[in-house]
Amino acid sequence: MALQAAGRQSLVDTVVDALRSQLTDGEWKVGSRIPTEHALAEQLQVGRNTVREAVRVLVHAGMLRSRQGEGTFVVSTADPGDIMRGIQRAGIRDVLELRIALEAEAARLAATRHRPDDLERMRAALDAQAELADAEGLPDPGSLELYADHDIAFHKAVVEAAHNTALTATYDWFSSSVREALVSALDDQAMPRIVHGDHRAVMEAIAAGDPEAAERATRALLDKPKRAVEALLATR
Amino acid sequence: MALQAAGRQSLVDTVVDALRSQLTDGEWKVGSRIPTEHALAEQLQVGRNTVREAVRVLVHAGMLRSRQGEGTFVVSTADPGDIMRGIQRAGIRDVLELRIALEAEAARLAATRHRPDDLERMRAALDAQAELADAEGLPDPGSLELYADHDIAFHKAVVEAAHNTALTATYDWFSSSVREALVSALDDQAMPRIVHGDHRAVMEAIAAGDPEAAERATRALLDKPKRAVEALLATR
Repeated sequence: MALQAAGRQSLVDTVVDALRSQLTDGEWKVGSRIPTEHALAEQLQVGRNTVREAVRVLVHAGMLRSRQGEGTFVVSTADPGDIMRGIQRAGIRDVLELRIALEAEAARLAATRHRPDDLERMRAALDAQAELADAEGLPDPGSLELYADHDIAFHKAVVEAAHNTALTATYDWFSSSVREALVSALDDQAMPRIVHGDHRAVMEAIAAGDPEAAERATRALLDKPKRAVEALLATR
Repeated sequence: MALQAAGRQSLVDTVVDALRSQLTDGEWKVGSRIPTEHALAEQLQVGRNTVREAVRVLVHAGMLRSRQGEGTFVVSTADPGDIMRGIQRAGIRDVLELRIALEAEAARLAATRHRPDDLERMRAALDAQAELADAEGLPDPGSLELYADHDIAFHKAVVEAAHNTALTATYDWFSSSVREALVSALDDQAMPRIVHGDHRAVMEAIAAGDPEAAERATRALLDKPKRAVEALLATR
């Protein structure tokens, strides 16, 4: 029974791999309809239930979409599992550079597109963070997780103030790994501490409607941890 | 039989949704081990096979990872399906802005990190593109797909020349939707045509090791289609 289940599991995985190859190799284009369950079962010499399970896997992964009565269509030919694993393998310097790319451009766009509630959310996050910090601006060791959450809320508010669905989706996508790195950096004496004034400068440039200043302030903010990481890597 | 299969399919989907909520709500943190198949089956009152299928779905989506004999661990709490659909829903202006964010920073980094073969790949892509263009620099209508492929190969070579795993993974992730938009833009008289000199300028600034010039040239290149899209949106 266990063996049968194991065999079945690996068969579905094999079919998932076969279908995914059709997508990543460009055999099936974005927007096109893939062959029917019946045709795929014949072609791959497997049961229709196995095909159905494999299709479900790729629907959940965002590569396919099923439309009732119409069939199954290609949404994306990139494998999100591969990409997630790529981000996970990336070092902290790589992740900081990706943040700089997304946040510097978001801040630039936010300067001309922000709405009053965007600024309100940035301000609320910074105020909440200030309350957790001592006189030297350092968070209490017991509140690192909460402090990190407020920091992420601030940066997320900046990105969302650009009002760009693609930027926001991409930023959200890897922000869970950002959080993990942030909590450990907050606890690391070799990393620069979060400077409140640097964050306020970003918010003020956005509020003033100055795209160049907003981008500059964001780069200044994120260049500090990046330089610290580069220094650490150089001494290893 | 069909009804049973349909019922089973929707039960797995329900379990996938339940497990995914634990992840996206932050109940299960990145890096932690999730409960055993047995415990989840008891908790959700479903069979172990159903749990196993649901876990498989989330492993393929890049949210979980199974380690033989050790259990199943959280890789990411972001749902790639949601994010892929977010990018799909984004308009072409949003996608261009995301490209500008990623490519401008990549070009800046590439100026100091490129290797000889990176420049070789940029040059090969531009030369291949030039061969498909007529005297006015316009591609033959029959070779739009191939022309788009060479264009994507050039931009991909720029991003890869930054030698940043996180940037490359993110760029690859949405480049299939870029391709679709590009082929239709090439066929659209209202969109500016691809200017060869603009591409060469990016390559030359990278080759010269000038980060500021590389970023500027990339922005100049991508601002043209962005402005054309904004003009089209404004007249609608």
